[in-house]
Amino acid sequence: MKLKGACLFGQSGGPTSVINASASGVFLEAMKHDCITEIYGAEHGIKGILEERFFDIRQEDVKELEFLKNTPSSALGSVRYKLKPVNVSDADYRRILEVFKKYNIRYFFYNGGNDSMDTCNKISKYLQLADYECRIIGIPKTIDNDLNGTDHCPGYGSAARYVATTIMELFHDIHVYDTGLITIVEVMGRNAGWLTAASALASLKGAGPDLIYLPEVPFDVDKFVNDVKNVAKKKNGKAFVVLSEGIKDMDGKYISEYLVSLDRDSFGHAQLGGVATVLAGIISDNLKVKVRPIELSLLQRCAAHLASGRDVEEAFMAGQMAVKYAVEGETDRMVAFERLPGKEYKIKCKLLDIRQAANIEKKIPISWITEDRTGVKKEFLDYALPLIQGEINFPLEDNLPRFAKLKKVLVNKK
Amino acid sequence: MKLKGACLFGQSGGPTSVINASASGVFLEAMKHDCITEIYGAEHGIKGILEERFFDIRQEDVKELEFLKNTPSSALGSVRYKLKPVNVSDADYRRILEVFKKYNIRYFFYNGGNDSMDTCNKISKYLQLADYECRIIGIPKTIDNDLNGTDHCPGYGSAARYVATTIMELFHDIHVYDTGLITIVEVMGRNAGWLTAASALASLKGAGPDLIYLPEVPFDVDKFVNDVKNVAKKKNGKAFVVLSEGIKDMDGKYISEYLVSLDRDSFGHAQLGGVATVLAGIISDNLKVKVRPIELSLLQRCAAHLASGRDVEEAFMAGQMAVKYAVEGETDRMVAFERLPGKEYKIKCKLLDIRQAANIEKKIPISWITEDRTGVKKEFLDYALPLIQGEINFPLEDNLPRFAKLKKVLVNKK
Repeated sequence: MKLKGACLFGQSGGPTSVINASASGVFLEAMKHDCITEIYGAEHGIKGILEERFFDIRQEDVKELEFLKNTPSSALGSVRYKLKPVNVSDADYRRILEVFKKYNIRYFFYNGGNDSMDTCNKISKYLQLADYECRIIGIPKTIDNDLNGTDHCPGYGSAARYVATTIMELFHDIHVYDTGLITIVEVMGRNAGWLTAASALASLKGAGPDLIYLPEVPFDVDKFVNDVKNVAKKKNGKAFVVLSEGIKDMDGKYISEYLVSLDRDSFGHAQLGGVATVLAGIISDNLKVKVRPIELSLLQRCAAHLASGRDVEEAFMAGQMAVKYAVEGETDRMVAFERLPGKEYKIKCKLLDIRQAANIEKKIPISWITEDRTGVKKEFLDYALPLIQGEINFPLEDNLPRFAKLKKVLVNKK
Repeated sequence: MKLKGACLFGQSGGPTSVINASASGVFLEAMKHDCITEIYGAEHGIKGILEERFFDIRQEDVKELEFLKNTPSSALGSVRYKLKPVNVSDADYRRILEVFKKYNIRYFFYNGGNDSMDTCNKISKYLQLADYECRIIGIPKTIDNDLNGTDHCPGYGSAARYVATTIMELFHDIHVYDTGLITIVEVMGRNAGWLTAASALASLKGAGPDLIYLPEVPFDVDKFVNDVKNVAKKKNGKAFVVLSEGIKDMDGKYISEYLVSLDRDSFGHAQLGGVATVLAGIISDNLKVKVRPIELSLLQRCAAHLASGRDVEEAFMAGQMAVKYAVEGETDRMVAFERLPGKEYKIKCKLLDIRQAANIEKKIPISWITEDRTGVKKEFLDYALPLIQGEINFPLEDNLPRFAKLKKVLVNKK
């Protein structure tokens, strides 16, 4: 039995290069189904629902919705908003139900990472309790690749390709002089090291880091100084280090917080300088060598020009499949990828219980990390290399990116 | 009268995405001329000459020399080495003459920026004084675009394309939440603002910075805080700032040095944190808002995957032309570009007195900077936009860059 009503899509959490590709998949697929009456995009995710700020997607040019595939960040606007447990306050839930009823929203797709899946799950469960029929499917997205139950997450492959490419280019740059230099590159990933580990892909081309530090294993500053010293001794005063922003010591304390404990925060540096800067200072003090900290910063999550074609296609497909599944009657699920056995890379889409994905962080298996804790094994490379494949047909105008230009016409039902 | 002998090529100064394209041009052109007996590449520029470390380029695969066109940084190794005035010490000059004689070097090509052209000029003049016949041509290179007498420098167009593209992507990233955020991006360029100004190209696509600060005009911290405040007031708490690492105050003091004067250097931060971090601290203290400093760091000078096709071709041509000119009898010159009048972009190569290029820094004309000192006018955009054009045929392997692999066989004549 087909459910007739409006479809609502929202984006949530930090940007990726391909979150808009999923939006494109949802919108273009939704247009194919007669049971979907209206197609809305919520501005700033859950916030747009609470404030009734919906864009009317049917008013957009289809061509621009195609351009979304290669437009980074969240075209509708994103949000970090955590719903309170319903027993603490049900105000947001009541408001969401009210808005869903008013707009006759019967299909709801929420695109994001762990926290967003938690939001999606809570909305789904509340609407069930309220006997409001609505098909709800979560669409995964995160450069961190830490969602549970899926082989990988849309957004990861592109960020990984950016990291590996950039590391290769940096490798060539930092080896240009015959003078000593310690380079420390900081990569995103608070608790999972997937993206940092992607730097190891550069080693397949002979241009990778000497040392990689992941948040999955405790970080020891003395060992680190010693590791760097040993590499520099062998390599003419040079060492190339890549580490995760989220490395922690044995006591679980973030290394990036070491600066605060040294009372250097009055100028605002504790918040501003990252772990690469902290460790650069420590290396400089200890080894009296030239050190250059480099933070890949926001660039690694929005560099759509270096997206993996496979990631773009899969993100688009995740959006499409979410709509197809919902139309078929599925709800309360998240789209996930399963990698099929065999030499050639192949995946199929499947559905997970949203709850399963929402609250467990998937980390790199410890058995994939080398015994000396400064690199990853072949298992990781075999896992990650297929994810960065596929050329993209990146649209250019004046040799600069041609990103989507949405009209963003607000629906007026207030 | 053709001069018969060996050809020597050296790379000097900071990396660019296309300095190896010039090397490719020199090597592949040199192979076409019978008067050129051997083709040598000096390891680490002038240092390789003094130490007699020459690679035998004829032993390289031509295919790999082609790959050099898209390989960033200096494949032969670079150097920062300043020759002393001859009256202070002529030891290096004598040594260079000795080595040139030993290897019968009759063609010498040196690829670099201002300082490298100074070196090239000094070697040229000394060999003239010593009555040693050698054709010497400088080949320009710098992302700073500050060499005098040429319309632009190889290396600039690619770095400019990287900056403009990255700024567009960052624009999409930082506008994703509806919360306040001041973003400060730091771009290379110690005394000339050409590369920083390239961020304005992103504005042509509606995704550029709100405020641009160049080293050509004095920087006033109070005005800056006020500028940011005004933009943030108008734009929902957001301001997007791009500035040059080399901005200085009225007294000519680098803003990046403000940190030192605040006695915050014992942890090594003065050397490590750049001007974006300094100003982020000041904005944070004054406006109590979230600030994110982003240093484009080495990425902007080695991101070959985002090179401008035109820049790659022109850098290659500069190398080719240097050889052609030398074979024709020219010496003591630098290859330069002249932009031809007319609507369509066209350049021709010409030769300059090396001295002319060596010691004068070309800056952005003040008349191209807006009156409020926070942006550039149409004249700059008209100048710079053609330089970032041209798609590149960027070779990939496993969807990662396929950079040149040189054998680097050292010549054994010691």
